[in-house]
Amino acid sequence: MKTEKELLRFLKQGDKEYLSNITIDCVIFGYHERQLKILLGSWKGLNGLGLPGGFIKKNEPISQAALRILKEKTGLDDVYLEQFHVFGDTPYRVNNNAIHPSIAKSWLSGRTISVGYYALVEFSKVTLEPDILIDRYEWHDVEGLPPLLFDHNDTIKTALHHLRINLYHKPIGYTLLEKKFTLPEILFLYETLLKRKLDRRNFPRKLVSLGLIKDTKEVRKIGQHRSPKLYSFDKKNYDRALKEGIVWAI
Amino acid sequence: MKTEKELLRFLKQGDKEYLSNITIDCVIFGYHERQLKILLGSWKGLNGLGLPGGFIKKNEPISQAALRILKEKTGLDDVYLEQFHVFGDTPYRVNNNAIHPSIAKSWLSGRTISVGYYALVEFSKVTLEPDILIDRYEWHDVEGLPPLLFDHNDTIKTALHHLRINLYHKPIGYTLLEKKFTLPEILFLYETLLKRKLDRRNFPRKLVSLGLIKDTKEVRKIGQHRSPKLYSFDKKNYDRALKEGIVWAI
Repeated sequence: MKTEKELLRFLKQGDKEYLSNITIDCVIFGYHERQLKILLGSWKGLNGLGLPGGFIKKNEPISQAALRILKEKTGLDDVYLEQFHVFGDTPYRVNNNAIHPSIAKSWLSGRTISVGYYALVEFSKVTLEPDILIDRYEWHDVEGLPPLLFDHNDTIKTALHHLRINLYHKPIGYTLLEKKFTLPEILFLYETLLKRKLDRRNFPRKLVSLGLIKDTKEVRKIGQHRSPKLYSFDKKNYDRALKEGIVWAI
Repeated sequence: MKTEKELLRFLKQGDKEYLSNITIDCVIFGYHERQLKILLGSWKGLNGLGLPGGFIKKNEPISQAALRILKEKTGLDDVYLEQFHVFGDTPYRVNNNAIHPSIAKSWLSGRTISVGYYALVEFSKVTLEPDILIDRYEWHDVEGLPPLLFDHNDTIKTALHHLRINLYHKPIGYTLLEKKFTLPEILFLYETLLKRKLDRRNFPRKLVSLGLIKDTKEVRKIGQHRSPKLYSFDKKNYDRALKEGIVWAI
């Protein structure tokens, strides 16, 4: 929890610790029981919702800054996190309009360019922590969002587009599913993220044939006549695919 | 051509015109007669090759800055240009080591984060123009590059990865092929960029079935018994696919 005093110090001399002109916006998608949500925050003094974000320390690698900010907001550090786009084109980004009275004369009043990162988290695991600029957080459905502060509607739209494209080239699920899962569980995860139906026979077969998941030879007992097979990720193949990208088909 | 006087003025007061801390690196791929090259520059006073790049004006949208820089270097403005990654992690980016003696005390000595853009150009159309930081340019094969300045080997590797992934989701070729082209011509273009063989029957069929290219009902006479059909892009479908992304298969 950040105090008023800390906020004032940040406004007065944050530029000694952080790079100016550049920020990180975090698009945090939460997946839980076949639902996809997004984390929004109520920004202090601005009467509106926006994405959480933060600044990059003077000598901090930016991917480390993104992990630190995510950890500060959610308490999580084992998450799927991807840089997806730099925002520096919208009128808000170009015109450098300081909309918050208390920052109008601070180092924050300069134009900011924003590096977008999206994260996929299991939203029941998140511990939300109000911060220096945000009073409280809310999870929202990704569909039908209200108008957000700054250019954050654009940011989220772009993040979803990149997330969906990325699903064709990178495996996901390792931090979102239990260690052992059924084929319908991973099918639902992909269907939820892609927002479309997949072939329920072929899709899991492809995951197996690519070596991303493997049969554990165990079953889950969920009824007298239902005991679906349990699968797990092949961590070695999974990590390689994360690093190099996979091609499902062209 | 930039003079010494202009360089000195840029070092002294460039921060009045440009954002500090952030630059653009241009990965310019040149395609010509089934070859893929990359444009490198000999940086003044640094005894090495690196990517061309530039700075963003205080109130300039960053995608416009990228187009301006590309036009300044190559004379071209109708090119395929994509933002692909922000570089702010390598030791060079974090440690803020001003390696050029003349910039050690200027506004340029601060840490820079770099936004990578890659362009695809027809390299015979390019007019190269030395600039304020670069003496002369050279085209190099993308394979087997020498060690480059800064973190530019990483930048190029990442650009190639993104270019190849992108080919599965965006059409390319509109500025690289003649208005009317044969199926082998577009097949070779994709094979060169992807650096792998494609199915020479199925691949063009997919382009047609996606509506990206269409039969012009004309042929090209290239011999007594050879007159392959000519195709053209369907500009409406092409532009939509560029904007929304396509999915070939999963």
